[in-house]
Amino acid sequence: MVKEFFEDYHIGEKLVTPGRTITETDLVLYAAFSGDWNPVHTDAEHAKQTRFGGRIAHGMLVLSVGGGLLLRLAPKSMIALYGVEKVRFMAPTRIGDTIHTESEVVKMTELDATRGLVNIRGDVKNQCRELVATFTIRYLVGRRDQETTA
Amino acid sequence: MVKEFFEDYHIGEKLVTPGRTITETDLVLYAAFSGDWNPVHTDAEHAKQTRFGGRIAHGMLVLSVGGGLLLRLAPKSMIALYGVEKVRFMAPTRIGDTIHTESEVVKMTELDATRGLVNIRGDVKNQCRELVATFTIRYLVGRRDQETTA
Amino acid sequence: MVKEFFEDYHIGEKLVTPGRTITETDLVLYAAFSGDWNPVHTDAEHAKQTRFGGRIAHGMLVLSVGGGLLLRLAPKSMIALYGVEKVRFMAPTRIGDTIHTESEVVKMTELDATRGLVNIRGDVKNQCRELVATFTIRYLVGRRDQETTA
Amino acid sequence: MVKEFFEDYHIGEKLVTPGRTITETDLVLYAAFSGDWNPVHTDAEHAKQTRFGGRIAHGMLVLSVGGGLLLRLAPKSMIALYGVEKVRFMAPTRIGDTIHTESEVVKMTELDATRGLVNIRGDVKNQCRELVATFTIRYLVGRRDQETTA
Amino acid sequence: MVKEFFEDYHIGEKLVTPGRTITETDLVLYAAFSGDWNPVHTDAEHAKQTRFGGRIAHGMLVLSVGGGLLLRLAPKSMIALYGVEKVRFMAPTRIGDTIHTESEVVKMTELDATRGLVNIRGDVKNQCRELVATFTIRYLVGRRDQETTA
Amino acid sequence: MVKEFFEDYHIGEKLVTPGRTITETDLVLYAAFSGDWNPVHTDAEHAKQTRFGGRIAHGMLVLSVGGGLLLRLAPKSMIALYGVEKVRFMAPTRIGDTIHTESEVVKMTELDATRGLVNIRGDVKNQCRELVATFTIRYLVGRRDQETTA
Repeated sequence: MVKEFFEDYHIGEKLVTPGRTITETDLVLYAAFSGDWNPVHTDAEHAKQTRFGGRIAHGMLVLSVGGGLLLRLAPKSMIALYGVEKVRFMAPTRIGDTIHTESEVVKMTELDATRGLVNIRGDVKNQCRELVATFTIRYLVGRRDQETTA
Repeated sequence: MVKEFFEDYHIGEKLVTPGRTITETDLVLYAAFSGDWNPVHTDAEHAKQTRFGGRIAHGMLVLSVGGGLLLRLAPKSMIALYGVEKVRFMAPTRIGDTIHTESEVVKMTELDATRGLVNIRGDVKNQCRELVATFTIRYLVGRRDQETTA
Repeated sequence: MVKEFFEDYHIGEKLVTPGRTITETDLVLYAAFSGDWNPVHTDAEHAKQTRFGGRIAHGMLVLSVGGGLLLRLAPKSMIALYGVEKVRFMAPTRIGDTIHTESEVVKMTELDATRGLVNIRGDVKNQCRELVATFTIRYLVGRRDQETTA
Repeated sequence: MVKEFFEDYHIGEKLVTPGRTITETDLVLYAAFSGDWNPVHTDAEHAKQTRFGGRIAHGMLVLSVGGGLLLRLAPKSMIALYGVEKVRFMAPTRIGDTIHTESEVVKMTELDATRGLVNIRGDVKNQCRELVATFTIRYLVGRRDQETTA
Repeated sequence: MVKEFFEDYHIGEKLVTPGRTITETDLVLYAAFSGDWNPVHTDAEHAKQTRFGGRIAHGMLVLSVGGGLLLRLAPKSMIALYGVEKVRFMAPTRIGDTIHTESEVVKMTELDATRGLVNIRGDVKNQCRELVATFTIRYLVGRRDQETTA
Repeated sequence: MVKEFFEDYHIGEKLVTPGRTITETDLVLYAAFSGDWNPVHTDAEHAKQTRFGGRIAHGMLVLSVGGGLLLRLAPKSMIALYGVEKVRFMAPTRIGDTIHTESEVVKMTELDATRGLVNIRGDVKNQCRELVATFTIRYLVGRRDQETTA
């Protein structure tokens, strides 16, 4: 659904996004983009010897994809990212895992007459329904009343 | 310097990373990677009419690059991302801005006999020394004593 | 809106997608991906001397983006691409142009008891409302009745 | 061979292009570029449960690569894409399949004194010689006579 | 032309490749791919203060593109790269420059009964005909006689 | 360690870089970037029938990555690439191989009062300690004395 204004969100509102398979390509692209070449992400020989037993996705990759998935279901929303809170990585995401995000609007704050903050908690889960990461994203959203009376 | 263990970090330790120019390419690549095609990032005509006056970088792009820059100065560190806290976006990053990160180790916690948490606060600034984003990254780092006696 | 089945489409139904600015990055990436390095797309000196006066986007790039934009508004649709018809390029798309697609369901055909074909005509227009390309995409879509009685 | 002008083409002329293996990388890159994240292309768990039994390439990816392969054998041709017709997808292209294009000049039309249209039919086949897609590409090509007398 | 065997090459044979504009995108992609984030390539503020007065392309980028251009004109050649010699960078390649390669077969050596070495000197020049780099690439090529009598 | 000036290098100085796994993604990206689609890199069916038994990385890819790895350990060095010499490819790098570079400063030449040349020999080895490529990179580095008295 199109979310244009602060008033279009409701506390307790939930969404389950489509899934996306995290591929070796995603790890290579994210390492290159971010410059984070930590060997646990990019050196298969090293990664084999860690407790993970193989390469794992960057936490920030999981956050980028997990957050991005939310926007697929809100393709026309007019939002700006205000902040991110309480990002925690619970379990590794390996090459071939398929993740999706389950979200809930947990808090709404009127910032001023024209803008509000919407806090959305996201739980990123893999194909085994295992929780791999949680985060709270804070979107800055315009308010309808102000817009329409302006 | 090579940071291998928890004991290699010290509270109050500061770093200033090299800079990186945020290009139109970065915006296009990050939109494609994350699936976040919000028009303020990818539709120049729309972006012109916002209060930003043009396309701006995704907050998560700034966080990915700002965090990644820290790792350029620690190319062999054996760390895992435990969490991220208090991410706030203060000012837009526009195409052509050059950002760097100024970091400080703000907290160190012994998690158990083999691992510790290192909290690093990062201030992302642009070429005008303007603060564009702040974050606290929490790294999970192995402890030396345990490793060497094991 | 979620389009799951053939029955969710209706002849005459129209959509206007968000816009996307076609960047130099898009031209470079598409040339590299497709292997189509025609100098009118990748050699600025040559392109200056053509009747276009500068580099223009690949027709197939415009088709890929113009078709992809349609799916942003249908993020969960379960479709397969059956065919494409009547693709015509009317005007060049230059670096910096912002295109969107205006679509209309123009034909629906019951293929058999379980599947139907939906023909969608797309008009790709730029920021000056100039028509740059038209196409007819034919989607293969499952039928609801069959699914629910199966 | 270098094809510079309309007169360099001949009806019935055939070409067989080199092959290109369609990799997982290609699917990820094309999904990101086009914004078409249909789960049959990007969600391995979902794709397993479809009649395809796994992820398949986007039809438009096959068309982009199948068309691009033609240009490898005509690296200096001065053409513009006029249109595309009769694109049909017969069989899925899976990750790891190697496709090539077999083409034939099927129609040539003098558009005016300076330009002509060349219709090329392409059959995209995989490593088992199975036909996966067909298309007719229409190139706009300059005419030699006009050029040399101009 | 299709070069299949050692015998298809001739000393003194020359080629002039099509041109390719080196874009900001190319610099960003090559920095990311290679991990070479030297600020003269990726930090516009720093680069302004160098004697180049702005960002310049990586030497290895120029070599990769300059060498790759040669293969556009030999799309079906069956070769392997044996070595590279005498790579020298004479002048910077800036964002927006268009480079091409002028090559000459300078040496041919029969390695054994089935293989030969072909040394090709390449001069990479920009749109002002200024020499920006030179290199000698050594290709390993199969010999026809052996192949046909085998 | 930060290498700022010619005087920071010493003949005989050695480095062993972190490793990087060469993925199918790297082959696809490098083929696309360079335009080198030689079937031994991009056509799995063809590559199977060569003496390599499968796709192998481009020599220039190995050189780009092998050289780039050196810079990870010298993230702030102010250098320019002056030339490359004696590049030889000894063994193929296959998809999944993990390579690293062992380097040694082999020659230092004072070019003039403000600049010097540092020749670094690099041996690229895979996970079996097999030598896959060697090269000599020549960096142009500023001299400290001149800089500080200027």
